[in-house]
Amino acid sequence: MIVWLNGELLDEGDARIDVRDRGFLLGDALFETLLARRGRIAFLDAHVVRLAAGANILGIPVPVSTGLLAIACEMLLEANGLSDEPRVALRITLSRGPGPRGLVPPENPIPTLLITAVESPPPPASLTAIVATPRRNALSPVSRLKAVPYLDNVLAREEARARGADEALMLDTSGYLSCASVANVFLWEGEKLVTPAEECGILPGVTRAAVIDLAVRLGIELVEDMIMPQRLARASGIFLTNSLMGLVPLSRIETNELAPHRMTGRLQAAYELLLEVEEEEADEF
Amino acid sequence: MIVWLNGELLDEGDARIDVRDRGFLLGDALFETLLARRGRIAFLDAHVVRLAAGANILGIPVPVSTGLLAIACEMLLEANGLSDEPRVALRITLSRGPGPRGLVPPENPIPTLLITAVESPPPPASLTAIVATPRRNALSPVSRLKAVPYLDNVLAREEARARGADEALMLDTSGYLSCASVANVFLWEGEKLVTPAEECGILPGVTRAAVIDLAVRLGIELVEDMIMPQRLARASGIFLTNSLMGLVPLSRIETNELAPHRMTGRLQAAYELLLEVEEEEADEF
Repeated sequence: MIVWLNGELLDEGDARIDVRDRGFLLGDALFETLLARRGRIAFLDAHVVRLAAGANILGIPVPVSTGLLAIACEMLLEANGLSDEPRVALRITLSRGPGPRGLVPPENPIPTLLITAVESPPPPASLTAIVATPRRNALSPVSRLKAVPYLDNVLAREEARARGADEALMLDTSGYLSCASVANVFLWEGEKLVTPAEECGILPGVTRAAVIDLAVRLGIELVEDMIMPQRLARASGIFLTNSLMGLVPLSRIETNELAPHRMTGRLQAAYELLLEVEEEEADEF
Repeated sequence: MIVWLNGELLDEGDARIDVRDRGFLLGDALFETLLARRGRIAFLDAHVVRLAAGANILGIPVPVSTGLLAIACEMLLEANGLSDEPRVALRITLSRGPGPRGLVPPENPIPTLLITAVESPPPPASLTAIVATPRRNALSPVSRLKAVPYLDNVLAREEARARGADEALMLDTSGYLSCASVANVFLWEGEKLVTPAEECGILPGVTRAAVIDLAVRLGIELVEDMIMPQRLARASGIFLTNSLMGLVPLSRIETNELAPHRMTGRLQAAYELLLEVEEEEADEF
Protein backbone atom coordinates (compact mmCIF):
# COMPACT_ATOMS: atom_id res chain seq x y z
CA MET A 1 0.00 0.00 0.00
CA ILE A 2 1.21 3.49 -0.87
CA VAL A 3 0.27 6.30 1.49
CA TRP A 4 0.39 10.07 1.26
CA LEU A 5 2.33 11.48 4.22
CA ASN A 6 3.15 15.17 4.60
CA GLY A 7 3.32 15.81 0.87
CA GLU A 8 5.01 12.61 -0.21
CA LEU A 9 3.78 9.35 -1.70
CA LEU A 10 5.54 6.63 0.27
CA ASP A 11 5.42 2.90 0.55
CA GLU A 12 3.63 2.04 3.80
CA GLY A 13 6.78 0.32 5.07
CA ASP A 14 8.81 3.52 4.61
CA ALA A 15 6.23 5.92 6.04
CA ARG A 16 7.10 6.92 9.58
CA ILE A 17 5.02 8.58 12.26
CA ASP A 18 7.33 10.34 14.74
CA VAL A 19 7.41 8.82 18.24
CA ARG A 20 6.71 12.32 19.59
CA ASP A 21 3.58 12.76 17.47
CA ARG A 22 0.77 14.08 19.67
CA GLY A 23 -1.72 12.05 17.66
CA PHE A 24 0.01 8.87 18.86
CA LEU A 25 0.72 10.12 22.40
CA LEU A 26 -2.48 12.05 23.26
CA GLY A 27 -5.08 11.47 20.55
CA ASP A 28 -4.52 15.12 19.60
CA ALA A 29 -5.72 14.65 16.01
CA LEU A 30 -8.71 14.67 13.68
CA PHE A 31 -9.72 12.48 10.77
CA GLU A 32 -12.17 12.13 7.91
CA THR A 33 -13.35 9.02 6.08
CA LEU A 34 -14.42 9.53 2.48
CA LEU A 35 -15.82 7.32 -0.25
CA ALA A 36 -14.22 7.39 -3.70
CA ARG A 37 -16.09 5.70 -6.52
CA ARG A 38 -14.04 5.19 -9.69
CA GLY A 39 -11.73 8.00 -8.64
CA ARG A 40 -14.50 10.45 -7.79
CA ILE A 41 -14.74 11.54 -4.17
CA ALA A 42 -18.18 12.13 -2.68
CA PHE A 43 -18.75 15.28 -0.60
CA LEU A 44 -15.06 16.20 -0.52
CA ASP A 45 -15.93 19.84 0.20
CA ALA A 46 -18.15 18.98 3.16
CA HIS A 47 -15.46 16.73 4.64
CA VAL A 48 -12.77 19.36 4.24
CA VAL A 49 -15.03 22.03 5.79
CA ARG A 50 -15.58 19.77 8.83
CA LEU A 51 -11.86 18.97 9.09
CA ALA A 52 -10.93 22.65 8.88
CA ALA A 53 -13.60 23.63 11.45
CA GLY A 54 -12.32 20.99 13.88
CA ALA A 55 -8.70 22.02 13.29
CA ASN A 56 -9.67 25.61 13.98
CA ILE A 57 -11.25 24.65 17.33
CA LEU A 58 -8.16 22.65 18.30
CA GLY A 59 -5.71 25.22 16.93
CA ILE A 60 -4.14 22.78 14.46
CA PRO A 61 -3.05 24.45 11.22
CA VAL A 62 -4.39 22.77 8.06
CA PRO A 63 -1.32 22.55 5.85
CA VAL A 64 -3.20 22.19 2.52
CA SER A 65 -6.20 23.62 0.68
CA THR A 66 -9.23 21.65 -0.52
CA GLY A 67 -7.81 21.77 -4.05
CA LEU A 68 -4.49 20.30 -2.96
CA LEU A 69 -6.24 17.65 -0.88
CA ALA A 70 -8.26 16.65 -3.93
CA ILE A 71 -5.06 16.35 -5.97
CA ALA A 72 -3.31 14.39 -3.20
CA CYS A 73 -6.25 11.96 -3.04
CA GLU A 74 -6.23 11.54 -6.81
CA MET A 75 -2.47 10.89 -6.86
CA LEU A 76 -2.87 8.38 -4.04
CA LEU A 77 -5.67 6.50 -5.81
CA GLU A 78 -3.59 6.44 -8.99
CA ALA A 79 -0.43 5.25 -7.17
CA ASN A 80 -2.39 2.37 -5.61
CA GLY A 81 -4.10 1.42 -8.87
CA LEU A 82 -7.46 2.30 -7.32
CA SER A 83 -8.62 5.06 -9.71
CA ASP A 84 -11.12 2.74 -11.41
CA GLU A 85 -12.17 0.84 -8.31
CA PRO A 86 -15.93 1.05 -7.73
CA ARG A 87 -15.47 1.68 -3.99
CA VAL A 88 -12.44 3.00 -2.12
CA ALA A 89 -12.25 4.20 1.50
CA LEU A 90 -10.01 7.25 1.82
CA ARG A 91 -8.95 8.34 5.27
CA ILE A 92 -7.39 11.75 5.97
CA THR A 93 -5.72 11.98 9.40
CA LEU A 94 -4.50 15.35 10.65
CA SER A 95 -2.56 15.39 13.93
CA ARG A 96 -0.94 18.31 15.71
CA GLY A 97 2.40 16.63 14.96
CA PRO A 98 5.38 16.17 17.26
CA GLY A 99 5.59 18.04 20.56
CA PRO A 100 7.58 18.14 23.77
CA ARG A 101 6.56 16.06 26.84
CA GLY A 102 3.23 16.97 28.43
CA LEU A 103 -0.11 18.39 27.37
CA VAL A 104 0.87 21.90 26.32
CA PRO A 105 1.02 22.07 22.51
CA PRO A 106 4.10 23.47 20.77
CA GLU A 107 3.71 27.12 19.83
CA ASN A 108 4.30 26.45 16.14
CA PRO A 109 3.05 22.96 15.52
CA ILE A 110 4.14 21.10 12.38
CA PRO A 111 1.07 18.97 11.79
CA THR A 112 1.12 15.45 10.41
CA LEU A 113 -1.16 14.84 7.43
CA LEU A 114 -1.65 11.22 6.42
CA ILE A 115 -3.94 9.95 3.66
CA THR A 116 -4.58 6.27 3.04
CA ALA A 117 -6.73 4.49 0.46
CA VAL A 118 -8.05 0.93 0.58
CA GLU A 119 -10.76 -0.93 -1.34
CA SER A 120 -14.07 -0.81 0.48
CA PRO A 121 -16.55 -3.71 0.39
CA PRO A 122 -20.12 -3.01 -0.79
CA PRO A 123 -22.38 -1.86 2.06
CA PRO A 124 -24.39 -4.60 3.76
CA ALA A 125 -28.11 -4.86 2.92
CA SER A 126 -28.91 -4.57 6.64
CA LEU A 127 -27.24 -4.61 10.04
CA THR A 128 -28.07 -5.78 13.56
CA ALA A 129 -27.31 -3.62 16.59
CA ILE A 130 -27.26 -3.53 20.36
CA VAL A 131 -27.27 -0.59 22.78
CA ALA A 132 -23.75 -0.55 24.25
CA THR A 133 -22.43 0.39 27.70
CA PRO A 134 -19.95 3.26 26.97
CA ARG A 135 -21.68 6.63 26.72
CA ARG A 136 -20.96 9.55 24.39
CA ASN A 137 -19.85 12.59 26.37
CA ALA A 138 -22.43 15.27 25.57
CA LEU A 139 -20.50 17.72 27.79
CA SER A 140 -17.26 17.66 25.85
CA PRO A 141 -16.50 19.67 22.72
CA VAL A 142 -14.51 16.63 21.54
CA SER A 143 -17.66 14.50 21.03
CA ARG A 144 -18.76 16.89 18.28
CA LEU A 145 -15.39 16.71 16.49
CA LYS A 146 -14.30 13.85 14.28
CA ALA A 147 -11.33 13.44 16.58
CA VAL A 148 -9.00 10.46 16.86
CA PRO A 149 -10.05 9.46 20.40
CA TYR A 150 -12.31 6.56 19.38
CA LEU A 151 -11.64 4.16 22.25
CA ASP A 152 -15.20 4.42 23.62
CA ASN A 153 -16.47 3.51 20.16
CA VAL A 154 -13.94 0.66 19.86
CA LEU A 155 -15.19 -0.75 23.18
CA ALA A 156 -18.83 -0.29 22.15
CA ARG A 157 -18.17 -2.14 18.90
CA GLU A 158 -16.38 -4.96 20.74
CA GLU A 159 -19.39 -5.26 23.03
CA ALA A 160 -21.63 -5.58 19.95
CA ARG A 161 -19.40 -8.30 18.55
CA ALA A 162 -19.39 -10.18 21.85
CA ARG A 163 -23.21 -10.07 21.85
CA GLY A 164 -23.49 -11.25 18.24
CA ALA A 165 -24.44 -7.92 16.64
CA ASP A 166 -22.84 -5.84 13.89
CA GLU A 167 -23.09 -2.39 15.38
CA ALA A 168 -23.37 -0.61 18.73
CA LEU A 169 -25.76 2.24 19.39
CA MET A 170 -24.48 4.56 22.08
CA LEU A 171 -26.43 6.77 24.48
CA ASP A 172 -25.08 10.12 25.61
CA THR A 173 -24.16 10.88 29.22
CA SER A 174 -27.73 12.14 29.87
CA GLY A 175 -29.25 8.87 28.66
CA TYR A 176 -30.46 10.05 25.25
CA LEU A 177 -29.75 8.16 22.04
CA SER A 178 -26.58 9.53 20.41
CA CYS A 179 -25.06 7.61 17.48
CA ALA A 180 -23.59 4.26 16.51
CA SER A 181 -19.89 3.39 16.79
CA VAL A 182 -19.25 4.50 13.17
CA ALA A 183 -22.60 5.89 12.01
CA ASN A 184 -25.46 8.25 12.74
CA VAL A 185 -28.91 6.87 13.44
CA PHE A 186 -32.38 7.72 12.11
CA LEU A 187 -35.74 6.38 13.38
CA TRP A 188 -39.02 6.21 11.53
CA GLU A 189 -41.99 6.97 13.76
CA GLY A 190 -44.81 6.30 11.32
CA GLU A 191 -44.01 8.56 8.37
CA LYS A 192 -41.95 10.95 10.49
CA LEU A 193 -38.14 10.74 10.51
CA VAL A 194 -36.33 11.43 13.80
CA THR A 195 -32.59 11.68 14.50
CA PRO A 196 -30.64 12.63 17.65
CA ALA A 197 -29.99 16.37 17.94
CA GLU A 198 -26.41 17.68 17.86
CA GLU A 199 -26.40 18.32 21.62
CA CYS A 200 -26.73 14.55 22.24
CA GLY A 201 -22.99 13.94 21.87
CA ILE A 202 -23.33 12.95 18.22
CA LEU A 203 -20.66 13.24 15.61
CA PRO A 204 -22.43 15.44 13.02
CA GLY A 205 -21.93 13.23 9.97
CA VAL A 206 -21.65 14.46 6.41
CA THR A 207 -24.09 11.76 5.29
CA ARG A 208 -26.43 12.65 8.18
CA ALA A 209 -26.54 16.25 6.91
CA ALA A 210 -27.17 15.07 3.34
CA VAL A 211 -30.01 12.78 4.47
CA ILE A 212 -31.64 15.55 6.51
CA ASP A 213 -31.46 17.78 3.46
CA LEU A 214 -32.91 15.08 1.20
CA ALA A 215 -35.74 14.32 3.63
CA VAL A 216 -36.73 17.98 3.67
CA ARG A 217 -36.59 18.17 -0.14
CA LEU A 218 -38.76 15.04 -0.41
CA GLY A 219 -41.34 16.55 1.92
CA ILE A 220 -40.65 14.08 4.75
CA GLU A 221 -41.30 15.49 8.20
CA LEU A 222 -37.93 15.47 9.96
CA VAL A 223 -37.17 16.21 13.63
CA GLU A 224 -33.78 16.50 15.33
CA ASP A 225 -34.71 15.45 18.86
CA MET A 226 -33.60 14.26 22.29
CA ILE A 227 -34.56 10.58 21.96
CA MET A 228 -35.04 8.32 24.97
CA PRO A 229 -33.88 4.78 24.10
CA GLN A 230 -37.39 3.38 24.75
CA ARG A 231 -38.36 4.91 21.40
CA LEU A 232 -36.04 2.45 19.64
CA ALA A 233 -38.39 -0.42 20.52
CA ARG A 234 -41.41 1.47 19.18
CA ALA A 235 -39.80 2.71 15.93
CA SER A 236 -41.34 1.51 12.69
CA GLY A 237 -37.90 1.42 11.08
CA ILE A 238 -34.32 2.41 11.89
CA PHE A 239 -31.40 3.09 9.59
CA LEU A 240 -27.77 4.08 10.03
CA THR A 241 -25.75 6.46 7.88
CA ASN A 242 -22.08 7.08 7.19
CA SER A 243 -19.91 8.06 4.27
CA LEU A 244 -18.85 4.54 3.32
CA MET A 245 -22.21 2.78 3.73
CA GLY A 246 -24.65 5.52 2.79
CA LEU A 247 -27.98 4.44 4.37
CA VAL A 248 -28.30 0.91 5.82
CA PRO A 249 -31.44 -0.31 7.61
CA LEU A 250 -31.27 -2.21 10.91
CA SER A 251 -32.90 -5.64 10.81
CA ARG A 252 -32.67 -6.12 14.56
CA ILE A 253 -32.04 -3.93 17.61
CA GLU A 254 -31.29 -5.96 20.75
CA THR A 255 -33.90 -8.75 20.43
CA ASN A 256 -36.44 -6.69 18.42
CA GLU A 257 -36.78 -7.69 14.77
CA LEU A 258 -37.31 -4.70 12.48
CA ALA A 259 -39.03 -4.78 9.11
CA PRO A 260 -37.60 -2.45 6.44
CA HIS A 261 -39.54 0.83 6.26
CA ARG A 262 -40.67 1.52 2.69
CA MET A 263 -39.42 5.14 2.89
CA THR A 264 -35.83 4.03 3.66
CA GLY A 265 -35.59 2.61 0.14
CA ARG A 266 -36.81 5.89 -1.30
CA LEU A 267 -34.20 7.84 0.66
CA GLN A 268 -31.51 5.36 -0.38
CA ALA A 269 -32.39 5.90 -4.04
CA ALA A 270 -32.41 9.68 -3.60
CA TYR A 271 -29.03 9.51 -1.83
CA GLU A 272 -27.56 7.41 -4.65
CA LEU A 273 -28.75 10.04 -7.14
CA LEU A 274 -27.26 12.81 -5.00
CA LEU A 275 -23.90 11.00 -4.97
CA GLU A 276 -23.96 10.82 -8.77
CA VAL A 277 -24.80 14.51 -9.14
CA GLU A 278 -22.08 15.40 -6.61
CA GLU A 279 -19.52 13.37 -8.53
CA GLU A 280 -20.46 14.97 -11.84
CA GLU A 281 -20.09 18.42 -10.32
CA ALA A 282 -16.68 17.45 -8.96
CA ASP A 283 -15.73 16.30 -12.47
CA GLU A 284 -16.71 19.64 -14.00
CA PHE A 285 -14.54 21.40 -11.46
CA MET B 1 17.12 11.39 22.36
CA ILE B 2 17.23 7.61 22.32
CA VAL B 3 13.95 5.75 22.72
CA TRP B 4 13.04 2.16 23.47
CA LEU B 5 10.69 0.85 20.77
CA ASN B 6 9.51 -2.77 20.61
CA GLY B 7 12.66 -4.15 22.19
CA GLU B 8 15.20 -1.90 20.50
CA LEU B 9 17.08 1.19 21.58
CA LEU B 10 16.78 3.59 18.65
CA ASP B 11 17.65 7.14 17.88
CA GLU B 12 14.42 9.14 17.92
CA GLY B 13 14.94 10.03 14.25
CA ASP B 14 15.09 6.35 13.29
CA ALA B 15 12.19 5.20 15.45
CA ARG B 16 9.07 4.69 13.39
CA ILE B 17 5.44 4.32 14.40
CA ASP B 18 3.54 2.47 11.67
CA VAL B 19 0.95 4.56 9.79
CA ARG B 20 -1.58 1.78 10.52
CA ASP B 21 -0.95 1.91 14.28
CA ARG B 22 -4.31 1.99 16.09
CA GLY B 23 -2.79 4.25 18.72
CA PHE B 24 -2.26 6.90 16.07
CA LEU B 25 -5.51 6.23 14.19
CA LEU B 26 -8.00 5.59 17.03
CA GLY B 27 -6.36 6.40 20.36
CA ASP B 28 -6.43 2.63 21.01
CA ALA B 29 -3.55 2.72 23.48
CA LEU B 30 -2.57 3.15 27.13
CA PHE B 31 0.32 4.91 28.81
CA GLU B 32 2.09 5.42 32.13
CA THR B 33 4.23 8.32 33.32
CA LEU B 34 6.88 7.44 35.91
CA LEU B 35 9.46 9.38 37.86
CA ALA B 36 13.04 8.14 37.92
CA ARG B 37 15.42 9.72 40.46
CA ARG B 38 19.09 8.90 39.90
CA GLY B 39 18.13 5.79 37.98
CA ARG B 40 15.64 4.53 40.53
CA ILE B 41 12.02 4.32 39.42
CA ALA B 42 9.30 5.10 41.93
CA PHE B 43 6.29 2.78 42.18
CA LEU B 44 7.23 0.82 39.06
CA ASP B 45 5.17 -2.18 40.25
CA ALA B 46 2.04 -0.08 40.78
CA HIS B 47 2.38 1.48 37.32
CA VAL B 48 2.88 -1.88 35.64
CA VAL B 49 -0.10 -3.35 37.52
CA ARG B 50 -2.29 -0.47 36.27
CA LEU B 51 -0.96 -0.81 32.71
CA ALA B 52 -1.57 -4.58 32.72
CA ALA B 53 -5.08 -4.14 34.16
CA GLY B 54 -5.97 -1.59 31.48
CA ALA B 55 -4.47 -3.77 28.76
CA ASN B 56 -6.54 -6.69 30.04
CA ILE B 57 -9.75 -4.63 29.80
CA LEU B 58 -8.90 -3.52 26.26
CA GLY B 59 -7.60 -6.94 25.19
CA ILE B 60 -4.12 -5.64 24.36
CA PRO B 61 -1.38 -8.18 25.10
CA VAL B 62 1.45 -6.85 27.29
CA PRO B 63 4.57 -8.01 25.49
CA VAL B 64 6.94 -7.78 28.50
CA SER B 65 7.07 -8.56 32.22
CA THR B 66 7.66 -6.04 35.01
CA GLY B 67 11.24 -7.29 35.28
CA LEU B 68 11.90 -6.72 31.59
CA LEU B 69 10.25 -3.28 31.72
CA ALA B 70 12.55 -2.35 34.62
CA ILE B 71 15.56 -3.46 32.58
CA ALA B 72 14.33 -1.62 29.48
CA CYS B 73 13.91 1.59 31.52
CA GLU B 74 17.38 1.19 33.02
CA MET B 75 18.94 0.63 29.60
CA LEU B 76 17.08 3.65 28.25
CA LEU B 77 18.23 5.92 31.10
CA GLU B 78 21.79 4.69 30.60
CA ALA B 79 21.69 5.20 26.81
CA ASN B 80 20.50 8.79 27.31
CA GLY B 81 23.08 9.55 30.01
CA LEU B 82 20.22 10.06 32.49
CA SER B 83 21.07 7.37 35.08
CA ASP B 84 22.39 9.94 37.57
CA GLU B 85 19.85 12.66 36.80
CA PRO B 86 17.93 13.72 39.90
CA ARG B 87 14.61 13.77 38.03
CA VAL B 88 13.63 12.00 34.81
CA ALA B 89 10.15 11.55 33.34
CA LEU B 90 9.72 8.10 31.84
CA ARG B 91 6.72 7.42 29.65
CA ILE B 92 5.60 3.93 28.65
CA THR B 93 3.11 3.89 25.77
CA LEU B 94 1.40 0.62 24.81
CA SER B 95 -0.82 0.65 21.73
CA ARG B 96 -2.72 -2.22 20.13
CA GLY B 97 -0.35 -1.82 17.17
CA PRO B 98 -1.17 -1.84 13.45
CA GLY B 99 -4.56 -3.00 12.25
CA PRO B 100 -6.73 -3.07 9.15
CA ARG B 101 -9.16 -0.21 8.33
CA GLY B 102 -12.02 0.28 10.77
CA LEU B 103 -12.72 -0.21 14.46
CA VAL B 104 -12.54 -4.00 14.74
CA PRO B 105 -9.17 -4.95 16.28
CA PRO B 106 -6.97 -7.54 14.58
CA GLU B 107 -7.40 -11.02 16.03
CA ASN B 108 -3.73 -11.31 16.93
CA PRO B 109 -2.55 -7.77 17.62
CA ILE B 110 1.18 -7.02 17.59
CA PRO B 111 1.27 -4.21 20.16
CA THR B 112 3.58 -1.23 19.99
CA LEU B 113 5.58 -0.57 23.15
CA LEU B 114 7.41 2.75 23.30
CA ILE B 115 9.43 4.08 26.24
CA THR B 116 10.88 7.58 26.33
CA ALA B 117 12.93 9.37 28.97
CA VAL B 118 13.45 13.12 29.38
CA GLU B 119 14.76 15.28 32.21
CA SER B 120 11.93 16.56 34.38
CA PRO B 121 12.01 19.98 36.04
CA PRO B 122 11.58 20.20 39.83
CA PRO B 123 7.91 20.39 40.84
CA PRO B 124 6.51 23.90 41.35
CA ALA B 125 6.00 25.10 44.94
CA SER B 126 2.37 25.82 44.13
CA LEU B 127 -0.04 26.03 41.19
CA THR B 128 -3.07 28.07 40.20
CA ALA B 129 -6.14 26.43 38.68
CA ILE B 130 -9.49 27.08 37.05
CA VAL B 131 -12.53 24.86 36.61
CA ALA B 132 -12.59 24.04 32.88
CA THR B 133 -15.45 23.44 30.45
CA PRO B 134 -14.80 19.88 29.14
CA ARG B 135 -16.21 17.21 31.44
CA ARG B 136 -14.80 13.82 32.36
CA ASN B 137 -17.08 11.04 31.14
CA ALA B 138 -18.13 9.18 34.30
CA LEU B 139 -20.16 6.76 32.15
CA SER B 140 -17.28 5.43 30.09
CA PRO B 141 -14.85 2.70 31.16
CA VAL B 142 -12.18 4.69 29.30
CA SER B 143 -12.19 7.53 31.87
CA ARG B 144 -10.88 5.09 34.48
CA LEU B 145 -8.06 3.88 32.22
CA LYS B 146 -4.84 5.76 31.63
CA ALA B 147 -5.69 5.69 27.95
CA VAL B 148 -4.19 7.80 25.19
CA PRO B 149 -7.38 9.76 24.41
CA TYR B 150 -6.38 12.94 26.27
CA LEU B 151 -7.94 15.53 23.98
CA ASP B 152 -10.50 16.67 26.60
CA ASN B 153 -7.62 17.21 28.99
CA VAL B 154 -5.58 19.03 26.32
CA LEU B 155 -8.52 21.40 25.74
CA ALA B 156 -9.05 21.87 29.48
CA ARG B 157 -5.39 22.73 29.92
CA GLU B 158 -5.50 25.18 26.99
CA GLU B 159 -8.51 26.84 28.63
CA ALA B 160 -6.49 27.21 31.84
CA ARG B 161 -3.62 28.76 29.93
CA ALA B 162 -5.95 31.18 28.13
CA ARG B 163 -7.33 32.23 31.51
CA GLY B 164 -3.89 32.70 33.08
CA ALA B 165 -3.85 29.58 35.26
CA ASP B 166 -1.49 26.60 35.43
CA GLU B 167 -3.94 23.75 35.72
CA ALA B 168 -7.54 22.87 34.88
CA LEU B 169 -9.85 21.09 37.28
CA MET B 170 -12.49 19.07 35.47
CA LEU B 171 -15.98 18.09 36.61
CA ASP B 172 -17.52 14.79 35.60
CA THR B 173 -20.60 14.51 33.41
CA SER B 174 -22.84 14.56 36.53
CA GLY B 175 -21.33 17.83 37.73
CA TYR B 176 -19.10 16.43 40.49
CA LEU B 177 -15.43 17.32 40.84
CA SER B 178 -13.29 14.75 39.02
CA CYS B 179 -9.58 15.47 38.52
CA ALA B 180 -7.16 17.95 36.98
CA SER B 181 -5.81 17.68 33.43
CA VAL B 182 -2.74 15.74 34.61
CA ALA B 183 -3.34 15.24 38.34
CA ASN B 184 -5.73 14.06 41.03
CA VAL B 185 -7.15 16.54 43.49
CA PHE B 186 -7.49 16.55 47.30
CA LEU B 187 -9.38 19.07 49.46
CA TRP B 188 -8.86 19.86 53.12
CA GLU B 189 -12.13 20.50 54.94
CA GLY B 190 -10.77 21.52 58.32
CA GLU B 191 -8.58 18.56 59.34
CA LYS B 192 -10.45 16.14 57.07
CA LEU B 193 -9.05 15.18 53.67
CA VAL B 194 -11.52 14.64 50.80
CA THR B 195 -10.89 13.39 47.27
CA PRO B 196 -13.26 12.55 44.40
CA ALA B 197 -14.42 8.93 44.43
CA GLU B 198 -13.48 6.59 41.58
CA GLU B 199 -17.01 6.75 40.10
CA CYS B 200 -16.50 10.48 39.37
CA GLY B 201 -14.65 9.83 36.09
CA ILE B 202 -11.26 10.14 37.75
CA LEU B 203 -8.08 8.52 36.55
CA PRO B 204 -7.11 6.49 39.65
CA GLY B 205 -3.57 7.78 40.08
CA VAL B 206 -0.69 5.84 41.58
CA THR B 207 0.25 8.88 43.69
CA ARG B 208 -3.41 9.34 44.69
CA ALA B 209 -3.43 5.77 46.05
CA ALA B 210 -0.14 6.36 47.88
CA VAL B 211 -1.44 9.58 49.46
CA ILE B 212 -4.69 7.90 50.59
CA ASP B 213 -2.60 5.16 52.17
CA LEU B 214 -0.30 7.68 53.87
CA ALA B 215 -3.22 9.72 55.20
CA VAL B 216 -4.74 6.62 56.78
CA ARG B 217 -1.37 5.65 58.30
CA LEU B 218 -0.95 9.17 59.71
CA GLY B 219 -4.40 9.02 61.32
CA ILE B 220 -5.89 11.66 59.01
CA GLU B 221 -9.60 11.26 58.38
CA LEU B 222 -9.95 10.58 54.65
CA VAL B 223 -13.13 10.40 52.57
CA GLU B 224 -13.53 9.45 48.92
CA ASP B 225 -16.63 11.41 48.03
CA MET B 226 -18.90 12.87 45.36
CA ILE B 227 -17.82 16.52 45.61
CA MET B 228 -19.96 19.38 44.31
CA PRO B 229 -17.68 22.14 42.95
CA GLN B 230 -19.08 24.63 45.50
CA ARG B 231 -16.94 22.85 48.09
CA LEU B 232 -13.80 24.08 46.30
CA ALA B 233 -14.53 27.63 47.44
CA ARG B 234 -15.01 26.54 51.05
CA ALA B 235 -11.97 24.26 51.25
CA SER B 236 -9.27 25.19 53.75
CA GLY B 237 -6.60 23.91 51.37
CA ILE B 238 -6.34 22.03 48.06
CA PHE B 239 -3.48 20.04 46.60
CA LEU B 240 -2.88 18.10 43.40
CA THR B 241 -0.99 14.83 42.99
CA ASN B 242 0.73 13.01 40.17
CA SER B 243 3.78 10.83 39.68
CA LEU B 244 6.08 13.60 38.47
CA MET B 245 5.06 16.35 40.91
CA GLY B 246 4.18 14.37 44.02
CA LEU B 247 1.93 16.71 46.06
CA VAL B 248 1.61 20.36 45.01
CA PRO B 249 -0.72 22.83 46.79
CA LEU B 250 -2.98 25.20 44.88
CA SER B 251 -2.41 28.87 45.66
CA ARG B 252 -5.50 29.98 43.75
CA ILE B 253 -8.64 28.38 42.37
CA GLU B 254 -10.52 30.66 39.95
CA THR B 255 -10.31 34.00 41.83
CA ASN B 256 -10.07 32.44 45.33
CA GLU B 257 -6.67 32.75 46.98
CA LEU B 258 -5.74 29.68 49.03
CA ALA B 259 -3.36 29.61 51.96
CA PRO B 260 -1.21 26.48 52.32
CA HIS B 261 -2.75 23.99 54.77
CA ARG B 262 -0.21 22.96 57.42
CA MET B 263 -1.05 19.26 56.95
CA THR B 264 -0.12 19.36 53.24
CA GLY B 265 3.50 19.89 54.23
CA ARG B 266 3.34 16.93 56.58
CA LEU B 267 1.93 14.71 53.84
CA GLN B 268 4.57 15.99 51.40
CA ALA B 269 7.33 15.02 53.83
CA ALA B 270 5.78 11.60 54.41
CA TYR B 271 5.47 11.07 50.64
CA GLU B 272 9.13 12.00 50.12
CA LEU B 273 10.09 9.42 52.75
CA LEU B 274 7.89 6.81 51.07
CA LEU B 275 9.61 7.47 47.74
CA GLU B 276 12.99 6.90 49.35
CA VAL B 277 11.91 3.65 50.99
CA GLU B 278 10.36 2.49 47.69
CA GLU B 279 13.58 3.23 45.85
CA GLU B 280 15.70 1.32 48.39
CA GLU B 281 13.41 -1.67 48.11
CA ALA B 282 13.71 -1.53 44.33
CA ASP B 283 17.49 -1.49 44.75
CA GLU B 284 17.45 -4.59 46.94
CA PHE B 285 15.40 -6.37 44.33
